[in-house]
Amino acid sequence: METVHQLKIEPGMSVDALVRGMSQCGFGARRLAEAVAIYENMLSGDFAKFLTLSGAMVPAGMRSVVSDLIRRRHVDVLVITGANLVHDIIESFGCHCLGTPESDDAALRESGVSRIYDVFLRDEDFVGFEELMQKILPDEPKTMSGRELMKHLGEQISDPKSILRSAYDAGIPVFCPALPDSMIGLQAWMYSQTRHLSVDAFADIKEIVDICYEAEKAGIVIIGGGVPKNFALQSMLVTPKSFDLAIQLTTDTPENGGLSGATLSEAISWGKISADAKYVTVYGDATITFPMMVAATLERLEKKGQETNEYSA
Amino acid sequence: METVHQLKIEPGMSVDALVRGMSQCGFGARRLAEAVAIYENMLSGDFAKFLTLSGAMVPAGMRSVVSDLIRRRHVDVLVITGANLVHDIIESFGCHCLGTPESDDAALRESGVSRIYDVFLRDEDFVGFEELMQKILPDEPKTMSGRELMKHLGEQISDPKSILRSAYDAGIPVFCPALPDSMIGLQAWMYSQTRHLSVDAFADIKEIVDICYEAEKAGIVIIGGGVPKNFALQSMLVTPKSFDLAIQLTTDTPENGGLSGATLSEAISWGKISADAKYVTVYGDATITFPMMVAATLERLEKKGQETNEYSA
Amino acid sequence: METVHQLKIEPGMSVDALVRGMSQCGFGARRLAEAVAIYENMLSGDFAKFLTLSGAMVPAGMRSVVSDLIRRRHVDVLVITGANLVHDIIESFGCHCLGTPESDDAALRESGVSRIYDVFLRDEDFVGFEELMQKILPDEPKTMSGRELMKHLGEQISDPKSILRSAYDAGIPVFCPALPDSMIGLQAWMYSQTRHLSVDAFADIKEIVDICYEAEKAGIVIIGGGVPKNFALQSMLVTPKSFDLAIQLTTDTPENGGLSGATLSEAISWGKISADAKYVTVYGDATITFPMMVAATLERLEKKGQETNEYSA
Amino acid sequence: METVHQLKIEPGMSVDALVRGMSQCGFGARRLAEAVAIYENMLSGDFAKFLTLSGAMVPAGMRSVVSDLIRRRHVDVLVITGANLVHDIIESFGCHCLGTPESDDAALRESGVSRIYDVFLRDEDFVGFEELMQKILPDEPKTMSGRELMKHLGEQISDPKSILRSAYDAGIPVFCPALPDSMIGLQAWMYSQTRHLSVDAFADIKEIVDICYEAEKAGIVIIGGGVPKNFALQSMLVTPKSFDLAIQLTTDTPENGGLSGATLSEAISWGKISADAKYVTVYGDATITFPMMVAATLERLEKKGQETNEYSA
Repeated sequence: METVHQLKIEPGMSVDALVRGMSQCGFGARRLAEAVAIYENMLSGDFAKFLTLSGAMVPAGMRSVVSDLIRRRHVDVLVITGANLVHDIIESFGCHCLGTPESDDAALRESGVSRIYDVFLRDEDFVGFEELMQKILPDEPKTMSGRELMKHLGEQISDPKSILRSAYDAGIPVFCPALPDSMIGLQAWMYSQTRHLSVDAFADIKEIVDICYEAEKAGIVIIGGGVPKNFALQSMLVTPKSFDLAIQLTTDTPENGGLSGATLSEAISWGKISADAKYVTVYGDATITFPMMVAATLERLEKKGQETNEYSA
Repeated sequence: METVHQLKIEPGMSVDALVRGMSQCGFGARRLAEAVAIYENMLSGDFAKFLTLSGAMVPAGMRSVVSDLIRRRHVDVLVITGANLVHDIIESFGCHCLGTPESDDAALRESGVSRIYDVFLRDEDFVGFEELMQKILPDEPKTMSGRELMKHLGEQISDPKSILRSAYDAGIPVFCPALPDSMIGLQAWMYSQTRHLSVDAFADIKEIVDICYEAEKAGIVIIGGGVPKNFALQSMLVTPKSFDLAIQLTTDTPENGGLSGATLSEAISWGKISADAKYVTVYGDATITFPMMVAATLERLEKKGQETNEYSA
Repeated sequence: METVHQLKIEPGMSVDALVRGMSQCGFGARRLAEAVAIYENMLSGDFAKFLTLSGAMVPAGMRSVVSDLIRRRHVDVLVITGANLVHDIIESFGCHCLGTPESDDAALRESGVSRIYDVFLRDEDFVGFEELMQKILPDEPKTMSGRELMKHLGEQISDPKSILRSAYDAGIPVFCPALPDSMIGLQAWMYSQTRHLSVDAFADIKEIVDICYEAEKAGIVIIGGGVPKNFALQSMLVTPKSFDLAIQLTTDTPENGGLSGATLSEAISWGKISADAKYVTVYGDATITFPMMVAATLERLEKKGQETNEYSA
Repeated sequence: METVHQLKIEPGMSVDALVRGMSQCGFGARRLAEAVAIYENMLSGDFAKFLTLSGAMVPAGMRSVVSDLIRRRHVDVLVITGANLVHDIIESFGCHCLGTPESDDAALRESGVSRIYDVFLRDEDFVGFEELMQKILPDEPKTMSGRELMKHLGEQISDPKSILRSAYDAGIPVFCPALPDSMIGLQAWMYSQTRHLSVDAFADIKEIVDICYEAEKAGIVIIGGGVPKNFALQSMLVTPKSFDLAIQLTTDTPENGGLSGATLSEAISWGKISADAKYVTVYGDATITFPMMVAATLERLEKKGQETNEYSA
């Protein structure tokens, strides 16, 4: 048996130096180090790279982490919640504010502020969002897929730090399987009262299943579970293939029986993940574990000369 | 200040007797008792009653709890995940099995079994599901809303214990805002390759918003968060109204910043819940807290003569 | 494979009727039903019955649940935190109050109130506690064990609902392995400045190990983990025996690596629990799961004629 | 209102560079950055620095993080669980091994292995521990305090990476308020059957309360809650002072009502923490958050020239 190596802290150490030290520790530290090892494998190899994103990651400041991964070509398929896209669009012209969870929520409402835990949003940014949406939504006689609508929106947003714009520039598909469950959905519905805008609820399925079919090997990073996790995994389910590498960063735990906390091993019983896949779940707040994983992995790629930094921002 | 009354257990006591004892305790016990008080208020009064359901509640045995609530006319609007409907349909002809979370998931796959924590599903039931879906999906030239599709499916299922069938019989709308993220979505997409089946992604929004507009007063029970929680709350958001009563049963906690664990107070800052609403969150496994809440509340209604038991099963 | 039976709610059903319905469900519901089955087995059979208690169960209203179990002779060994005993003593003359977790804690301090989540304590009750302790602590030249001190305190408290008094009346040992970590410890230290009071830190170990040695068969109910869990389990560890039945009610989960959330299976690797033991962990708030388990189990015993209700209160 | 700054990942960035980026994010990321700001303040200023440690941090590889903090003189008082000290002593001659949580625990027992989540311990290391303890425990006619016993043990251990030895070398007191709840307790009791060894259960209270009285200003880092958290906080409670700075790293959440997850705000209502204190709780696995906090803080001190690295290892 290998022994636990007691972690040693050096002032000024890089994120990857810390993660390497964690690789022979126990508990969450080792899991995080395993995630970095798998992610390095995924980004270095010839894998179709899926990223699924749920939880309020954009309001919490993770937008550029995602859009930079896209611009560096480390994402081939993005599956995301509508809420994260709403906040991505808001960031393209407005902002989120540093708030506090100990708030008088009725007073916040009075002053036109909505709260997401310790992040505040001003009503004026929602108004800006609504006005922008009514401008950039397409007047399109043909019924679209959700992915086509996302591509159209990405094209209309000029902010290069935008997730939607980055995906458009990189030519990667964005799937938002619960699109009606978001303010984009609300705005699209209002818009469609007077213009031509029609989205086929099921058209995305064909598109993502085709991608799964064509992938020789596939890896997935799952942030926070939810609908994006299941939509990506079920798409692989209807092909003869399954994911070869899988990383899950979540605060949910298996005992509750819900999908967000379900182990990746459970996904093997469904055939969504390969029986000989490498996989790991890191339990904890993804605003901490996701940046650490990305920073450590990019550091490794850069040292190997695989990360050129020549991506357009 | 009122004092804590130490809980007294009497052998043979009813569920409501236990819950009443909890009402002057602390922590989860008191929250559960508050939930029952609010639910009694909701079911006795003139509220539009929303129920949102996520997490694998049907596989875990909560199907009849939901369908009985519908048949007793205690639900006016149901918002639910596609997965729960898939399993509702499977139960109408097949079954779920008692399994264990400590499983060899690769061996389960070999033997054709999929696992949901400690519940097993046999491939033959999925095959049965697929065959049934290909039979009962509608060949309909007109583009439908998701709710219309759910109503059609409910009509085709004969099992009176089915959630979909009960909703059809009771004439209540079923919304499944992430429909593509389920095996119903997969089957609908396959079906639509050769038949006429088209669902407008945004049509449900109008329908649920109309319901919100028409409600004089509204109450909501949220099981497990997720897309159903947000879809119901955001629908109220676009009206001048907000929920007057709200109960949330969830295993997620606020600190992670995600919507499933967000406090109901946070929803007040958005205007989704009224500043003077009565609301409570019970943290814990809904397979325990939901049946307790329902049992205690129905017991109260029956004692008041409001629960006639004359509902068609 | 056995099938999941969908749970059916009947208004007015007893707690055990509900639990029986849960026995063929999934997730927490089934685990709770398993806990009741094991507890029925433990209380009906010839087991040395250990109960360990941590978390603020007495402030939360669970004091009589525990003291009644003791008076019914369903506890042979109690291992408990000092804090629960402090609050048990306070309840013998004073009270805890219904508060709220959304409090201005600085204002509470100003007004002489201490908070335990949603339970409040007034400074006057702490003053009463201190005065009582200075009266009832023993002036004893001989060095005592912690258990002897607990017995002495139990004798001095007249309230029959007290855990300490009930244990004294029933003649069962009370172990408080982290006694210095409590206001009893603080008071005992102050008292010992002017009187004879000396407690040997290790004397309890011999006493509980002797009990473990003498037990033919042993069962344990663990509420909340912590020091009481480990102290009871490690005492069995130094004997050739191990626990045959074990129930754990906890909010902690295994992934964090701490003992409070550690699985009971893990305890098998240590030899604390028998490899062929029956055991279950119910994840969730013990102010809900503990009363349910006790109510359902006592109902079963009463139906079997094993619960006479002829216990002295 | 300040705005959220979207976090930017640079390959090769230092841990503190990452943490600085997190300081204007939301959720756990911002809390972690706040913890570093408070810790920098604590280590730079004239504070009595308390560190409390529970959870299996030494088996998980955090031993040197703690002992280096002690050797760097960043700890003035250590309050710790007995289990962590047991594993600290084992590491001084033996080792912990990298295991897996998905284990056959009965088979592990057969092969003489005990499991702590994903860390394994071989029986031979426990045997070595027992032999060592019987050699190094003191034969001392005078009744000792727990702290005196800990000092004696530290003196007998030669491994400079040991927490106990580092504390001995640095002359800082180690308190283990639940000492009987550990294998040190078991060994001490066995030893005391044939030698003179007597520990006064309450003697430590005077010693730590004296330290609290003498502290002009005090700061505390709480890893994992439990008895160490409460023992340190209650010691301050009996003085007119309270903690001015407080950091808590825990996986427990407030809703359960237990002390380990209780907010630091709650401690203000007790007078344990000052009403104008700076404090933060970082929710998550301390094997990730503790090393990050330490690495980032030491980096800041080094840049300010306050961290000389001239400490004896």
